[in-house]
Parts: sequence; C-alpha cells; structure tokens
Amino acid sequence: MAATSEPFRIGLLGHGTVGAAFETLVAERAGAVAATVGQRPEISGVLTRSRGDFDEILEGSDLIVELIGGIEPAREYVLRAMRAGRHVVSANKQLLSQYGEELWAVARENEVQLRFEGAVAGVVPVIRVLQESLAAAHVERIHGIVNGTTNYILSEMARAGISYEQALLQAQELGYAEADPTDDVTGRDAAAKMAILARLAFSTPVHLDQVVYEGIEHITADDMAYADELGLGLKLIGTAERVDGGISVRVHPAFLYGEHPLATVNGPFNAVTVESDAITEITMSGPGAGGPQTASAVLGDVISAMIPPASTPETTQALPVVGDVVSAFYLHMEVADRPGVLAQIAEILGMQGASIKSFVQRGLGDNARLVMVLHPLLESRLYAAVRMIGQLDFMRAAPRAIRVIDEEFS
Amino acid sequence: MAATSEPFRIGLLGHGTVGAAFETLVAERAGAVAATVGQRPEISGVLTRSRGDFDEILEGSDLIVELIGGIEPAREYVLRAMRAGRHVVSANKQLLSQYGEELWAVARENEVQLRFEGAVAGVVPVIRVLQESLAAAHVERIHGIVNGTTNYILSEMARAGISYEQALLQAQELGYAEADPTDDVTGRDAAAKMAILARLAFSTPVHLDQVVYEGIEHITADDMAYADELGLGLKLIGTAERVDGGISVRVHPAFLYGEHPLATVNGPFNAVTVESDAITEITMSGPGAGGPQTASAVLGDVISAMIPPASTPETTQALPVVGDVVSAFYLHMEVADRPGVLAQIAEILGMQGASIKSFVQRGLGDNARLVMVLHPLLESRLYAAVRMIGQLDFMRAAPRAIRVIDEEFS
Repeated sequence: MAATSEPFRIGLLGHGTVGAAFETLVAERAGAVAATVGQRPEISGVLTRSRGDFDEILEGSDLIVELIGGIEPAREYVLRAMRAGRHVVSANKQLLSQYGEELWAVARENEVQLRFEGAVAGVVPVIRVLQESLAAAHVERIHGIVNGTTNYILSEMARAGISYEQALLQAQELGYAEADPTDDVTGRDAAAKMAILARLAFSTPVHLDQVVYEGIEHITADDMAYADELGLGLKLIGTAERVDGGISVRVHPAFLYGEHPLATVNGPFNAVTVESDAITEITMSGPGAGGPQTASAVLGDVISAMIPPASTPETTQALPVVGDVVSAFYLHMEVADRPGVLAQIAEILGMQGASIKSFVQRGLGDNARLVMVLHPLLESRLYAAVRMIGQLDFMRAAPRAIRVIDEEFS
Repeated sequence: MAATSEPFRIGLLGHGTVGAAFETLVAERAGAVAATVGQRPEISGVLTRSRGDFDEILEGSDLIVELIGGIEPAREYVLRAMRAGRHVVSANKQLLSQYGEELWAVARENEVQLRFEGAVAGVVPVIRVLQESLAAAHVERIHGIVNGTTNYILSEMARAGISYEQALLQAQELGYAEADPTDDVTGRDAAAKMAILARLAFSTPVHLDQVVYEGIEHITADDMAYADELGLGLKLIGTAERVDGGISVRVHPAFLYGEHPLATVNGPFNAVTVESDAITEITMSGPGAGGPQTASAVLGDVISAMIPPASTPETTQALPVVGDVVSAFYLHMEVADRPGVLAQIAEILGMQGASIKSFVQRGLGDNARLVMVLHPLLESRLYAAVRMIGQLDFMRAAPRAIRVIDEEFS
C-alpha cells in the first residue's frame, strides 16, 4: 500500500497517564504504522480541563480517542464525535458498562466504529477475540482476573503471609493501588469489566447495576493458610456464564485448585479464560494496566479503525535470519569419577566463556553423573565446549546439552 | 444489520477431520452468524479426491476454505481462487511457511483476503493478535509451544516418569500423535508455525528452510528427573526474536523455570507468549489441535472475511441476568470444641443439600477451627446454612464462606 501524504488525524481527549503514554507511543510508532497501513497517524489536538476546544478538535480529526474516564463529559463527547461521523476509540469501562447500549446504537446509526480494547484487561486482547475470533462461538462461560490491584494484594498475602492491610499498603507504595482504592478492592471495577465482557459474549444487554460483586477486604491471612493446606489459591474472579434460562454475571473472591489456568496468574497481571464447546477454552494473560500497556491497546484499535484488517501482510523490511544465538544450557555428563574430572571440565567451560549457575552430582566411581545449568553463552561456544568435553578419556557417554530459557518473571 | 436473503457461499476444499468438523460447525452456527453479520453462510460445494470439480466450486462460491494440506494441489487452488477474486481461508502451515510470499503478493494484487488463523496453534488467536492488536507494536520476541503432540509426550514423561518411547505410544493410542509422528517429534511442524509467526511479527520474509529445528527424540526420563531437581521443566519451544542485526527463528527442547508463563502449559495444549517493550508480554493458550477447535478458528476467519469487524455489537437476544447460581464453597468456622459440634454443623449442611469434599480441623477446646470445602450447591442454600450455623451457641465468630472454582483441568 503506497503511503499517502495526508496524515490520519487523531483528536485526543484526556491527558492523564494513559493519554500521555498514547501521545508518546503515536510519535514513536507513526513511521511503522505508515509502513503497515499506508497512512501516518498524528495527534491533531489534545483536550484537557485547562486547554483545547472540543469543537475545534473534532473538526480537525478523523478519529477521536477518549481517555477522560468517568461518565460526563466523556459520554457527551463520544456521542457528538460519532454523530459527526468520527470513529471513536475509548478505554472507559464506566461509560461502556453503563451507557454501552446507547453508544453502540449511535455508532450503528452513524456507521462509525466504536472500539474499546483498552477498557478491559489492558493489553490482553479479550475484546477483539470475543468480537472477532469467537464471533460465531457459543460462549458458555468467561472467568477473568480483571483487576490487577486486587490480584497483586492477594498474591502478596499468599506469598508473604501478610495481612490484607499490609498488602494494600505495599500496593499503594508500588503504585499498584490508588490512594482511594475503593473501586478496586470492593470489586466494582472488575464488575464494570465483566458487564462489558458478558455483553459481548452473550449479545444481550448487561448493565453494571446487574452485576453482583463482592470485594476482598474481608479476606484474612488465616484463610490463605488453610486454603493452601487444601491445595487452593485465592483470586478475585469475575464470572459471566450461561445458566438455566439466562446468564449470571458476578465478581467475588474464589479459591482455585492449582491446575486451573488462572491459578498461576500472579502480581498485577490480568487473565481471561473463555469456554465454549467448540473451542474447549482459550486463556489470555498479560499486564492488566499501566500507561504504556493501555496506550498500546488503544493504538491497536486506532489502526484497526484506520483500515480493514491487514490480511495480506507486506514485507516492510528484509532482516537476516541469524543462526548463532545466546542461550543458557543444561549439561548432562556421565563420567568415571576420578580426581581432576571436574577441574578438566571446568577448564574447558571457562575457555569457552561458560559459567556454572547450578550443579548436581550423583553416583561414584565409574558411574557418576554431573548435571549443571550454565549461564547464557553463544551456542557456538557451548557446542565447542561439548565437543572438547566429549573427547576427554573419562567420559562414559557423549555429553548432552539442552537449552534453558532463563528469564526473570514477576 | 438486516439479513439479506442471499447466502454467503463457501467452497470447501478437503474433507478430512477438520473439513468435516467445519461443515458441521457451519450448519450449527449459520443462524447465529446470520444474526451477527447479516448473511447466512452455507457450504456451496465440497472438493475431495473422489468428488467435486474445482472450477464449478469456485464459480459457485464467495469464499474458498482450503483444508487439503500439503503443497500441491492446495497451492494451485488457492492461487486460482484469489486470482478469481475470492477471499481464501486456509489452515495450511506447510503452504504458508514455504509459499507465503507468493500467496500474499497474489492476495494484494487481487485485493482479496487470505486468512490463516487455523494454521498456527489451533484456536489460540495468535495470528489475529499479531496482525491486528499488535500491528504497531515493536515485537521483540515470541516464545511458543506450538505442537500439541510433543507437549503431550513431554508432559507425560515428566508426570509419570516414563520414557520417550512409552509416552509416544500412549500419545498414539489417545490420538494425540499420528502413526508416523516424524513431522511432530522432529520439530518440523513447529518450525513451519514459527516461520509464519516470525513473518508476521517482524514483517520480513521467513521461509521454513531458514528455521533451525531440533526434536525431542533424544530426551530421556533421566533428563527430566535431574531437571526437576534443578527446578526446571522441559518443553519443545519455538523462538522468534530480534538479535543484533537480524532475527533468529528456531525450535528446540528447552528447560523453563517454574515461573515462566509457558511452564504450566501441559498436555496437548498450545501457548504463545509475545514480548514487546510497550506491552511487556501477552500469553495466549488453548487446545492446539483437534477438528472442532481448528474448524472454529477457520469459521472465525470466514466471518471476518464476510464483513469488516463488528465494532458495533447488536443485541441479538435479551437474556435475564440471574442472581442465584451453583458454586462450591470454602467454609471457615471458629468453634468451642464440644461434643456434638461437628454433628450439628453437618446436620444443617445436610438439610441444605451441602456435602463436604475436604476438611481440616485445628486447635482444641474453646478455640478450635473447622475449615472445609463443600461440593457445589445453590448459593442461596449455602447462605441459608451459614445463617443457621451462625446461630449455634458454640460458634465463636461468624462463619466465613468463600467460593471455590472446582473444575477438572487436564
């Protein structure tokens, strides 16, 4: 697709954490977007409480990004933008869970797109997957961890054995919880998100007021300890499911057995599991919030509104495909356990720049085994070391090397 | 959107496991698709080795679904369909990893869509997420478990301590491995999928021949045991990442530490983690294969090709939102430990139809605690029991009930 000279003009409403991150991201990625979709996005105007004029911004934009939050004036601006024929991208869960039907009706009447991936689970693409990949699936149930603040608090209570109050304080210090955490810890924030997911999954109107929710303020360290004994872990779980004659949408603390796909989602992460007969289940997880992450979801929506999905990828660059890369390794050696064995192996490893991270030795005499994990090094150097070690006369079999993916995760 | 009377005609090439499942799924979901996108899909012709004529099927179709597999005649049919102006949906990883550039060029020239979600990781929507949600993300790395057969074999070796040969036999008996498992166990199947993912993530041509791959045939039960001791689990991992001056795409057995998001993906499941500065990481998981699952991914692509993304959901039904649902519960009671305490509690639980799944008792005398997990029952009955138990004179605090999500997972 040839790039046109006309930029794609984005009117940005709101300039808080996400708004500022979005402005930065657009500037950073404008070239890549232009290469992909043929038009360069740019921020053509910004509205905050103290600067900008909505009518002027609307007039000078092809699309409006609403990141003000709350109901008014966000609702009025979104409605006016769509009535003026503009696509709208919003990350506003309150607005969509309370005025969604009105907004979608106006979008349909005016044949514009209203996209809102950023409203639920940050960068986890659950809205797109429900609306597109699963458009024809008969969804039976959604389980979600859709509030990062409470997931962080519960994870810390479980990990460190601390009280709810201690964990909340820690979350506030780290910026995972706000000074007034009410919306998060009462389950209301998660309830708004589950209302939106239920609406999309079941094609039936769901208002925030219809969602039953319960928070985590009453959970004790004691509950966590007993539950651990019973093989259970505690999460704040949103559920939207079909029940006899209708649907149920609710949010409450719930224990999960260790094998459940949501049981291992820890810290400020979000995750959503969608169940349906045809697909069995899909689980998606990732950071639930954060300025750059939500901004990234918003930009994905903007690009989708710019053009129909890019189903015919163009080559925008020709990168060499490289052979030799850096990796950590597991190394398994069967040796006759004589004096000097480990020293000779260590010398070869050292020559190739390999250093040992952990080490197990088993057996004695002619049938000893040395098993170690090496810190990352170039594969070519590891294999050079393996060839040299294989030639040592005390080796009883060829050494075996297997890669180790050695990363830090929260 | 008003339903038109014209059906959307799908020409189906291939009628194996996925093809047959796709035909069934279209028949089942045609009404729901019509309600969502305004047009009813129908299979207008089927081509197999023994029946059907390609030219006739092409003539009578709006879109071609290619589920033949392999290179020829699939390649020829797909090219001819696109040159005739038809959108194409394919689940053919061999074709896309070897002739992708040719196919995408022809799709662009003819302004048709070529969609292929079913080619990688079954129902896990990684293609759509890479092409749409992450269209503007600077992807740094993808790690994937993209072959269900090998993941099942490695999971069973780890779980049951059995040999590679035993686990392979078991996989074949359960239908997770084919009679000739070569493509799966050598890593070649995973390599084709990683070539496709790398192509999309980095917008650079990647051919299957450029992917370095290594299989799992040489892994021993012994490796698994030592690794377990070092806190490691083994998976067949596909990696596509940026390295200095280029990219690296490879498949090999690799150990993961327990905290890695792919470490807990067991059995025939697939999972993909995409890393980028802006998004941190997204992990998606689900069944990697199976007729109905792959058919579901194919139908999602067909619907996307039928219309632009449904960004303005319509209400297609009005379901009641139900309050009282069934759940398992954790119940925590502080009691004075006198004779008959447990009997009275058990009687109340029995009256409400609650039965005990597991049970822990701690402490003695005036400060005992009873903690139990109850099998699923209606919430209203559980709360009735909690109210009655709360009135017993030996209770030292109000009983505490927390939901338990009690499901079987593989």
